[in-house]
Amino acid sequence: MIEDKDRKKTDLSSLGEFGLIDHLTNQFEIKQESTVKGVGDDAAVLDFKDKKTVVTTDFLIEGVHFDLSYMPLKHLGYKAVMVNLSDVYAMNALATQVTVSIAVSNRFPLEALEELYSGIELASKIYNVDVVGGDTTSSTRGLIISVTALGEVVEEKISYRSGANENDLLVVTGDLGAAYLGLQVLEREKQVFQVNPNNQPDLDQYTYLIERQLKPEARKDIPQLLADLDVKPTSMIDISDGLSSEIMHLCKASNVGCNLFEDKIPLDPQVINACEEFDIDSTTIALNGGEDYELLFTVSQEDFPKIKGNPNLTVIGHMTAKKEGMHLITRANQKITLKAQGWNSFNEE
Amino acid sequence: MIEDKDRKKTDLSSLGEFGLIDHLTNQFEIKQESTVKGVGDDAAVLDFKDKKTVVTTDFLIEGVHFDLSYMPLKHLGYKAVMVNLSDVYAMNALATQVTVSIAVSNRFPLEALEELYSGIELASKIYNVDVVGGDTTSSTRGLIISVTALGEVVEEKISYRSGANENDLLVVTGDLGAAYLGLQVLEREKQVFQVNPNNQPDLDQYTYLIERQLKPEARKDIPQLLADLDVKPTSMIDISDGLSSEIMHLCKASNVGCNLFEDKIPLDPQVINACEEFDIDSTTIALNGGEDYELLFTVSQEDFPKIKGNPNLTVIGHMTAKKEGMHLITRANQKITLKAQGWNSFNEE
Repeated sequence: MIEDKDRKKTDLSSLGEFGLIDHLTNQFEIKQESTVKGVGDDAAVLDFKDKKTVVTTDFLIEGVHFDLSYMPLKHLGYKAVMVNLSDVYAMNALATQVTVSIAVSNRFPLEALEELYSGIELASKIYNVDVVGGDTTSSTRGLIISVTALGEVVEEKISYRSGANENDLLVVTGDLGAAYLGLQVLEREKQVFQVNPNNQPDLDQYTYLIERQLKPEARKDIPQLLADLDVKPTSMIDISDGLSSEIMHLCKASNVGCNLFEDKIPLDPQVINACEEFDIDSTTIALNGGEDYELLFTVSQEDFPKIKGNPNLTVIGHMTAKKEGMHLITRANQKITLKAQGWNSFNEE
Repeated sequence: MIEDKDRKKTDLSSLGEFGLIDHLTNQFEIKQESTVKGVGDDAAVLDFKDKKTVVTTDFLIEGVHFDLSYMPLKHLGYKAVMVNLSDVYAMNALATQVTVSIAVSNRFPLEALEELYSGIELASKIYNVDVVGGDTTSSTRGLIISVTALGEVVEEKISYRSGANENDLLVVTGDLGAAYLGLQVLEREKQVFQVNPNNQPDLDQYTYLIERQLKPEARKDIPQLLADLDVKPTSMIDISDGLSSEIMHLCKASNVGCNLFEDKIPLDPQVINACEEFDIDSTTIALNGGEDYELLFTVSQEDFPKIKGNPNLTVIGHMTAKKEGMHLITRANQKITLKAQGWNSFNEE
């Protein structure tokens, strides 16, 4: 939260749009065989050969999706890529390329965009995707990022939302609720900072929560793990809007119902502790918090032995007949109808 | 410019993000064989078989790229698609899919977004492209549109910016400068309207200029025409930032110079008349006006007989050795060095 006042600041208008794109993208290497031509022409040229292409896109808007008072620009660039790759992995596909468009007001110097792009570059290196295009323009207010991600997958492996069957097991990767709590911790520290800018926050007990909010990782490992385990999910979706609304998406697309067991929902100890501290119910956070970028999928019961005991995977419920509805079975064995209280940006102003 | 005060207004928050996407996209038909799965999953699934895929993306931002006081929302939706398809055609490819993401402030009712999407739908129908995805979110200010377009092309046909050779002919489609002048007319009418809202503008003599600004058409016909004429351009680019800067892009990417002949630049009679009225030089407008969405390409001299006399195509110059530089040869036979004064959004605030 402390700005380096001595840092060099170069006005964006001194480079112009073409100079800016060149400057920001000229260090990007091409890593994917499917990238025939990256940045530098009217369009990128890709070659997916006999594989299917998947494509997905997401906006990140300052003041709606992020707050630069605690989100470092490098992390933001990284996260903007993750948000999109997560959707590619949710198709059981391999992410291969992204295009990154940014609109910025003149308050951002070139060095700020370099920071943002260093995060994008880091993400593209670690996740082995090519940055093949984009657009750079001015905005009337704040920073706006639009990323489109492409991926490839053989037809037999594609996991849609619509393939879940009655009695299939409902499985989630990783753990839930941490990103939302990380945001609560950061918001609280922002308030403290505004009152007393010299206060030194002690965030040691929240490191995992903050990392999940500021530097989420998409589950690149899961399509590979599923292939290694010889498991083809019958349906799959990424959890960005909270477990509850994503389960409902799966159920609706697949025409099934579901029982979700509260005691099975995977929670990190930091999530449990922070929920006590903030006096909020951890199940509510896991169901509705959002931004976890984990994957939710269904598998046939026959596949249970293959996934059993895997530390990355937790069976949290099972699918039922549609007429049975979508329910949470509480620790007290009560049956509660699931509701989607996922994030709705149109309610926020 | 006259608002219908009786029009129904539905608050966006009453639908939520999922309801909104469904509502706006459920009437879109799938037309392309390459679209396996469109809107409705984590990502769209496409199948380009043995063809190469091209991908390009562009932002349109209220207050930077458009002014809603004279740009109807339906036209804006149409234009947002055109801007991107133009880049696909500039690769000599067939446009097949688009994703459309929009961010809007709460001042826009649902009906405004329906207008916007009706333009997107019209463009997708006329240009035979599928809308396969997107994102809908709120903005802190104004309307922001991000479109990504995909297309397909066989490898032998791809036209990069980098293939122009010395002595190749420089060819442009359509005519130039009209979109910029259309914007000037609209800006002038806006001023008049602000002074006297009852003034009825007489825009008959500017119809072509205004149409080129408000409802530009991308040159879908050109890749097909070139195929019919059996002409493979050695290089190609779309003219969105003005002829001058696009010629310079071609020359730099191809390591050649160029002579552009002022008297060959195609101008519509309305452009010539409006330039006289506004007391501006028509060549300056053609060189630097921008937003024409025509295509600029080079062909080998051998191909001249094939393109000669075609009403869609005008030979405006030829490529030279790099060391000879990039020049405009004026009507008075003066040699002037080309400069890129194309649109730079970072200078505008």
